[in-house]
Amino acid sequence: MKILGIDPGYGTTGFGLVEGARGQFSLIRSGAITTPPGMDFSARLEIVYEDMKKLLELSKPDAVAVEELFFGQNVTTGIGVAQSRGVILLAVRQAGVKVYQYKPMQVKQAVVGYGNATKHQVMDMTRRILHLEALPKPDDAADAIAIALCHGRSSTSLLAQIQNK
Amino acid sequence: MKILGIDPGYGTTGFGLVEGARGQFSLIRSGAITTPPGMDFSARLEIVYEDMKKLLELSKPDAVAVEELFFGQNVTTGIGVAQSRGVILLAVRQAGVKVYQYKPMQVKQAVVGYGNATKHQVMDMTRRILHLEALPKPDDAADAIAIALCHGRSSTSLLAQIQNK
Repeated sequence: MKILGIDPGYGTTGFGLVEGARGQFSLIRSGAITTPPGMDFSARLEIVYEDMKKLLELSKPDAVAVEELFFGQNVTTGIGVAQSRGVILLAVRQAGVKVYQYKPMQVKQAVVGYGNATKHQVMDMTRRILHLEALPKPDDAADAIAIALCHGRSSTSLLAQIQNK
Repeated sequence: MKILGIDPGYGTTGFGLVEGARGQFSLIRSGAITTPPGMDFSARLEIVYEDMKKLLELSKPDAVAVEELFFGQNVTTGIGVAQSRGVILLAVRQAGVKVYQYKPMQVKQAVVGYGNATKHQVMDMTRRILHLEALPKPDDAADAIAIALCHGRSSTSLLAQIQNK
């Protein structure tokens, strides 16, 4: 099973494609879609959408995994991220691939084994699971890989499918 | 000049197309794109996107006007609305039409004459400006018409163009 994890943004959208089954995974491809600051926002959305379409064509994932959106302190950034997430979900839908979403705690649980793991622990376990010497950069790509692994390792994947959010 | 006002949502997206210049406007078309509750969220985004594309083809507006997003009490709904707004901005961008965004206070200022006008006053002035006996339903369509009028009557329209939001 090929799983594409995505960490949405309008400046940087991380992605990580992993292949494998419950116990054994390998990293096929990772990276980030970036758009320049100062560019018209709609133009940035279009780049994210077009690049996501190309990535889906190239990767042909069996499933896409994204983190659930939650708004912390920076609501303004959050609005931009949510709009970008909208065009990403559209591209995935048009490619006919199912989307699964996970809470940050579910990612920690699935990758490290407990929901209160630190970011460092998640990154370290992600690296070990994939037998890598170091995790790919940028951090957004590493985050996306962890989300992909979460889907691959989660026995409740089917329950996490996006319903109405 | 034909202006398409849009009030984004994932359940109901209001739209209103007006034609005219600073002093004189008429309503060409209005309505709402709706998606059923309970449907997969990505499928709803796809409907909004596809219907918006058709609406843009049919309407051929010179400009699109939308309200700036701000998050009030219901952040969860706001995240859904922002994601829908993302696919709307994408459709407008792909149609080659410029988007202008306004704060609620700017809509009130432009339509009624002062920024603290009530919703009732905005609706009443919208109806009078367009020489209508009653405003179209649903409310989302009437809101979208007011936003279109805001752009048409605003002398600072060019300054309101979306930058980075």
